[in-house]
Amino acid sequence: MRTTVGIIGAGPAGLLLARLLHDAGIDSVVLESHDREYVEHRQRAGILEQGTADVLRAAGAGVRLDKEGLRHDGIELRYERRRHRVDFPGLTGGRSVTVYAQTEVCKDLIALQLADGGPLLFEAEALAVEGVEGERPRVRFRHAGAEDVLECSYVVGCDGFWGIARQAVPPEVSRTFERAYPFAWLGILADVPPSHDELVYARHDRGFALLSMRSPSVSRLYLQVPAGTDADDWTDDEIWDELDRRLETDDGWTLRRGPITQKSVTPMRSYVHEPMRHGRLFLAGDAAHIVPPTGAKGLNLAVGDVVTLARALAHEKETGSPELLDTYSADCLHRIWQAERFSYDMTTMLHRAPDADPFDSRLQLARLERIAGSRAASAELAEGYTGFSY
Amino acid sequence: MRTTVGIIGAGPAGLLLARLLHDAGIDSVVLESHDREYVEHRQRAGILEQGTADVLRAAGAGVRLDKEGLRHDGIELRYERRRHRVDFPGLTGGRSVTVYAQTEVCKDLIALQLADGGPLLFEAEALAVEGVEGERPRVRFRHAGAEDVLECSYVVGCDGFWGIARQAVPPEVSRTFERAYPFAWLGILADVPPSHDELVYARHDRGFALLSMRSPSVSRLYLQVPAGTDADDWTDDEIWDELDRRLETDDGWTLRRGPITQKSVTPMRSYVHEPMRHGRLFLAGDAAHIVPPTGAKGLNLAVGDVVTLARALAHEKETGSPELLDTYSADCLHRIWQAERFSYDMTTMLHRAPDADPFDSRLQLARLERIAGSRAASAELAEGYTGFSY
Repeated sequence: MRTTVGIIGAGPAGLLLARLLHDAGIDSVVLESHDREYVEHRQRAGILEQGTADVLRAAGAGVRLDKEGLRHDGIELRYERRRHRVDFPGLTGGRSVTVYAQTEVCKDLIALQLADGGPLLFEAEALAVEGVEGERPRVRFRHAGAEDVLECSYVVGCDGFWGIARQAVPPEVSRTFERAYPFAWLGILADVPPSHDELVYARHDRGFALLSMRSPSVSRLYLQVPAGTDADDWTDDEIWDELDRRLETDDGWTLRRGPITQKSVTPMRSYVHEPMRHGRLFLAGDAAHIVPPTGAKGLNLAVGDVVTLARALAHEKETGSPELLDTYSADCLHRIWQAERFSYDMTTMLHRAPDADPFDSRLQLARLERIAGSRAASAELAEGYTGFSY
Repeated sequence: MRTTVGIIGAGPAGLLLARLLHDAGIDSVVLESHDREYVEHRQRAGILEQGTADVLRAAGAGVRLDKEGLRHDGIELRYERRRHRVDFPGLTGGRSVTVYAQTEVCKDLIALQLADGGPLLFEAEALAVEGVEGERPRVRFRHAGAEDVLECSYVVGCDGFWGIARQAVPPEVSRTFERAYPFAWLGILADVPPSHDELVYARHDRGFALLSMRSPSVSRLYLQVPAGTDADDWTDDEIWDELDRRLETDDGWTLRRGPITQKSVTPMRSYVHEPMRHGRLFLAGDAAHIVPPTGAKGLNLAVGDVVTLARALAHEKETGSPELLDTYSADCLHRIWQAERFSYDMTTMLHRAPDADPFDSRLQLARLERIAGSRAASAELAEGYTGFSY
């Protein structure tokens, strides 16, 4: 097989890139190791920055998003049984976010790609990326029981943190930056209308809790748990009781309970691989960087990467100049490090570290009170949450 | 001896409190363990927030301040050989700071107190504070070779971190919050005009550096050094060479050198004692809390405390109500924790921790770039630097 851009991975990064390239008249092939059912149902992020929603609309993937997505104009911070709302449009000159699950973004993009896009091969497992320093890089992959080779002008690794694309960057030119957190998120989906109409981020001495939602009838809730926790260690009642404790307020707010339909543990990690390009290989999304989920930045960062890359590839096609391809890594990393900083700060402000001392606790409360008391500080948070431009 | 308010310590907190009480018609006696020469010459802070300068003026200690103090409308941040100025008035609606050394504040307040204030006893060492839970607390002290007792209605500990007043708060009602930093500041005074007209805060892979000034002809400069460093470990040339390295820019800026007249090492600590009141004992300034010097908050916090306390004592005198005395601790701690947060953030953004990993370094640079790139983020810093209201 031959194509211009070989894309490894059919998550939001790979699927959107294929779509943007299609719109720019550039051929691509997407290789995805899992089957369609898996890709369309793995639970991930659900908060789209304004810029992300705009990109999806421009790519033709906005119909269901506009119908089913929930526009959110703020979040609530809870601490010491008090509540403080951060008003996004008022603090950012009109920006907001949209709650629309990554699973739905993937379904929309897959439907578009299968309707009129280039090849999208499910159960096509990339085995190795070769020759990226030369003119004709190749992806060796296994599909339908046989090995095959995809010959490309460019290869893009959208295959996530555990993917194989990054391995094609020689260690001597790679720098990695990493932070592991000693806690994780126990997340549930529950068939019950959300108990609040915006996301609630709660800092509690017992640990962080997050109230979120998938739809007007499905709640998504999270509890900070120790790293390595097994979701089955918690009964449904224990989860609801603990959510109650951490989300409790002084003003009589109550948490609605309902049947828990899914339960899983998400590890927390910060990770950046530099550079994001080597020869004719480009990395995008989780293949190059991971953020802890507290800032809801993972999906949005991936979208930012592929927008930057699609623009660079289109520029090269139109003008013959590789200048934007040459600055791809630096252009992305500037935005990515801002998101890493934001995600780290949200995480450390709200979670209880196992080795936290009383000074740390007071510092967390002072940060929350500062946001509640200063327009500049809450604007800083609102700008970060609604998104860094790209 | 008898008085209404017994004040232990003639630093800026104790001296200003005595002055504010004098203006409110409340008697006080100040006991200071050192001699006048010592108090007037110990090098400490030199940045007055706008509110601090206003309080000093209102207390009659503004004449020399207005003549010799240097109004600063911003600071410069340096990193990666680049420079970014933070414009205080533009970001805060007109606020600025004044460079005027603590030694000079003390001289001005001592002159006022000796001219028409209550007793100010130098070389009067407080030995113990007693009976603070009753109606008539006492300070036992040694003066002119003999022990004496100061009987008071209230005792105020303005005797610094190492003072004895805090010991009169029983351990079972005390909570302390502390953070030690693994680095210190090597500070010099040099007879050379400052090489920049505003303070320069430099983040460098080799460690933090700060360019400051005492006057148009005297520079004050600091280098981050490991905790426990002896000032004599560094020759003058080594100090200038290291300052050169850490302050270097790409635009040809140069550091002027001159004779070093003083050299000392300042440890770095965050500390808060809660509550700041027990019975008829009140703590103010460093006796209750310490900040690392990076945010220039120590003197300003002390001023905030005694303004709050003088107001509460005057209110009690006028109305008979102890309500403001009862809220003194909580009122102060709110502001103090904001300054603790600000000082911690400035410190950790700019200093190199011995155990810092590459992720920490990138995070520091992302923070600095965020300040350089976002009005909200730089306003957040400018508000903190020019002062939290009291």
